[in-house]
Amino acid sequence: MPDTTSAYGRLESLFHKIHNLTHLAAMAHWDSATMMPPGGSEARGQALAEISSLINERVGSQETGELIEQADAVRSSLSDWQQANLCEMRREWFNASSVSPELVRAHALASSRCENAWRKLRGENNWADFEPLLSEVIALTREQAAMRSAASGLPPYDALLNLYEPGQSSDNINRVFAQLKAFLPAFVKQTVQEQKGDDLIRPAGSFPVEKQKALALELMKAIGFDFNHGRLDTSHHPFCGGVPEDVRITTRYAENDFSESLMGVLHESGHAKYEQGLPREWLSQPVGKARSMGIHESQSLFQEMQVCRSHAFLRFSGPLMKARLGNSETPDACWEADNLHRLYNRVQPGYIRVNADEASYPLHVILRYELEKALVEGSLEVRDIPEAWDEKMQNYLGLSTRDNYKDGCMQDIHWTHGMLGYFPTYTLGAMNAAQLFRAAHEAIADLDELISRGSFDVLNQWQSKAIWSWGSYWSIDELMRQASGEALNPKHFIHHLQQRFSPR
Amino acid sequence: MPDTTSAYGRLESLFHKIHNLTHLAAMAHWDSATMMPPGGSEARGQALAEISSLINERVGSQETGELIEQADAVRSSLSDWQQANLCEMRREWFNASSVSPELVRAHALASSRCENAWRKLRGENNWADFEPLLSEVIALTREQAAMRSAASGLPPYDALLNLYEPGQSSDNINRVFAQLKAFLPAFVKQTVQEQKGDDLIRPAGSFPVEKQKALALELMKAIGFDFNHGRLDTSHHPFCGGVPEDVRITTRYAENDFSESLMGVLHESGHAKYEQGLPREWLSQPVGKARSMGIHESQSLFQEMQVCRSHAFLRFSGPLMKARLGNSETPDACWEADNLHRLYNRVQPGYIRVNADEASYPLHVILRYELEKALVEGSLEVRDIPEAWDEKMQNYLGLSTRDNYKDGCMQDIHWTHGMLGYFPTYTLGAMNAAQLFRAAHEAIADLDELISRGSFDVLNQWQSKAIWSWGSYWSIDELMRQASGEALNPKHFIHHLQQRFSPR
Repeated sequence: MPDTTSAYGRLESLFHKIHNLTHLAAMAHWDSATMMPPGGSEARGQALAEISSLINERVGSQETGELIEQADAVRSSLSDWQQANLCEMRREWFNASSVSPELVRAHALASSRCENAWRKLRGENNWADFEPLLSEVIALTREQAAMRSAASGLPPYDALLNLYEPGQSSDNINRVFAQLKAFLPAFVKQTVQEQKGDDLIRPAGSFPVEKQKALALELMKAIGFDFNHGRLDTSHHPFCGGVPEDVRITTRYAENDFSESLMGVLHESGHAKYEQGLPREWLSQPVGKARSMGIHESQSLFQEMQVCRSHAFLRFSGPLMKARLGNSETPDACWEADNLHRLYNRVQPGYIRVNADEASYPLHVILRYELEKALVEGSLEVRDIPEAWDEKMQNYLGLSTRDNYKDGCMQDIHWTHGMLGYFPTYTLGAMNAAQLFRAAHEAIADLDELISRGSFDVLNQWQSKAIWSWGSYWSIDELMRQASGEALNPKHFIHHLQQRFSPR
Repeated sequence: MPDTTSAYGRLESLFHKIHNLTHLAAMAHWDSATMMPPGGSEARGQALAEISSLINERVGSQETGELIEQADAVRSSLSDWQQANLCEMRREWFNASSVSPELVRAHALASSRCENAWRKLRGENNWADFEPLLSEVIALTREQAAMRSAASGLPPYDALLNLYEPGQSSDNINRVFAQLKAFLPAFVKQTVQEQKGDDLIRPAGSFPVEKQKALALELMKAIGFDFNHGRLDTSHHPFCGGVPEDVRITTRYAENDFSESLMGVLHESGHAKYEQGLPREWLSQPVGKARSMGIHESQSLFQEMQVCRSHAFLRFSGPLMKARLGNSETPDACWEADNLHRLYNRVQPGYIRVNADEASYPLHVILRYELEKALVEGSLEVRDIPEAWDEKMQNYLGLSTRDNYKDGCMQDIHWTHGMLGYFPTYTLGAMNAAQLFRAAHEAIADLDELISRGSFDVLNQWQSKAIWSWGSYWSIDELMRQASGEALNPKHFIHHLQQRFSPR
């Protein structure tokens, strides 16, 4: 029971209410993507808008701000976790209060209009009709960035970035991405060359959805997904939703290719295990939430890229895959770890970010980061995006997207949705993941051996102690330092790529 | 866009917000019963309690009451529908404001404690441990009834009854139920005798869930369930939930008996079609809601009892049932309408209300009504329930429940849940249904013929015009008068039973 007489106690009780309302919003979101019949969408949209604005209003209210000041004045009387919680309360209050409700509404409206049109226009490769809608979103995003910048004193792009990655700066990202840019383009080219001669056996035939799902559930269970606090369903776009007490992950199945779904499930399970591992006693409070999107992505990529695409994991999973999915058209040798490892670590630059391999993926992100930063700063206009996109694609990946908007600048939902400042977190996540996996390797001498036997308890305990159980207690840098000995250092990711793609 | 400057306009906008919040609560309720993993229940319970209390607080606030007074002062400036809406707003405000929030909370807490214990204790036939928990619920229910009685001027039991059946009184129910009590016990006995010699062919073997579900979906579609605004799922207890824009019905399947699920789906579809047929332009407002629980049940029983257990419907559905469910162990003659009609209209008094046939069902309800009224009035104490139950079971149905609490007074969730005043609505519904079906028959000359051909458009249009499209515009009595020529008259139900169970 929180003490409801002190300012801090009243804040805990307010944020507990917010947690309860957020629960309902999260479940309704999940339902929209997995269960809802089409005719329900308008009423659902209104219900979700209602609860968002209610939450935003309460978190960002003047009263909340005043309580935070009062609690802060006597912060020395609070425990360490309470103090960290107060910090996160302030951050949430600040984010909610530094933009006017009218602008939030206008931005949400423009984004939703743009997103709805995008679903149709992308398929038609129709940039001309999309451009004015996106321009409106970008104009309102610039306004929002300016307001957040004025409130925080950060540069406008950084003010958006900080919504997803608190404490991160574009100066730091520039520095880190510069190292990747210096390394990756040549590395991708070289790896493609080296892999050309690889003997590759691809799975063939059909893989019934029910069998794919059974395998997914089996592997989820093996790696420690807690089915008492979560479930797996189907949606058009895979995601991890719900609440820490009840995490809902989704996938989509294709009968002729099980790998995308399988790797997607393992990726989302990484997100889910983070949520399920957050500190139980703080779940209703801001400090109990996941640290940042970059740390969240580090946990999904830790699971998918570091663990599940490793040779050790494929030695464990190969026989399970064969037992569930084996058929007369797929040679037995396909299911051997060497072959699966080649299959799941194939470098092939392409147009589409979400289909990209581990080595070229960051280049997709860097391209978007550079363009969105310029968009926010006003040095790039919406009408000039396609040309700028094409130029960078040629430089980074040797591919042209001229006149191909569909597979170029119209492929992602983020800008359409008004979410600028989010893209870098994917690659921050990939780098964090590599750094953390190296640290786990140092801490657990027989890690590969354990993974190859399908034994994940020790690793999960390590992740829990290093990341999950801390919620938002530490800053991102401090969390990484405690977990891996240093703040984010891209050399570990580069080293990981070199190891993984060195000719076996 | 509501006019937000007038008191009435502000009320519409308030109730629209309430509608949005209720949407999220309804979906979370549905999810709890159909999708949620067990570990999610505590957080879900808290989230649902939060939103209920938020809704209750807003609807029952002093501000809402004042706005209603202001709007009422200039009600002649409002349209007929707006005036009816204002009436319903007042009713919702009155119900929310006439009990103290502390009592609501204490009642909810005691009910939830009692309900949780009941799940275990019922199986153990353990009345001794259940009694004190139920006593607490009843004590708080009496307090609530007293508060509502003081606010409304109604007798305490009637004050509870009015939550579910606005305008209904125990005097009227006494009168109506007296006619049923005079007729039913002898009628049930006689029908059991007459049916003894019936030649009955029962379905045999196993009926795979997937096939049962396919049949259920096929029949739902045929009778006009709108899948663009609803869906069918599985839960432990069948129910109709969700919102009018997205109605969620559920069933449970048994492989060795398809009938319970099939008839259950048709019953819930009746509820669903009412919800889906409510006046679209008023859905967000109190006047757009279903009229009462007794009218709601009339629509489910209209569908199940009047339409779907009729000989005409079984002529239509028999071949479809055979096509989906036919197997080598079930003789072809089983699927013939005559046999199905005997099968689905078999009178056999039993202990359990939810399994009761159409003729003995009202006796289960009358028993509960008489006991719960005495409980609220204080002329019956919780410790004396088992004896009183046994006595009435012997009088009405010739069965003793001595020492059999499980199948006696511990079988239902309603009292456990603190819902006294609800039971009569089941039988009010059954009587309304018979009366409405007679009216439909008079309005549609070839109704049986249409039903036997699986053609339901004309009937659905009639129901829409008579009931669905009115929402809560009319009072219950007026609604029944407009739809059927008179307010509730039990003779139509008695006549229906006589017709249905007359030896063919």
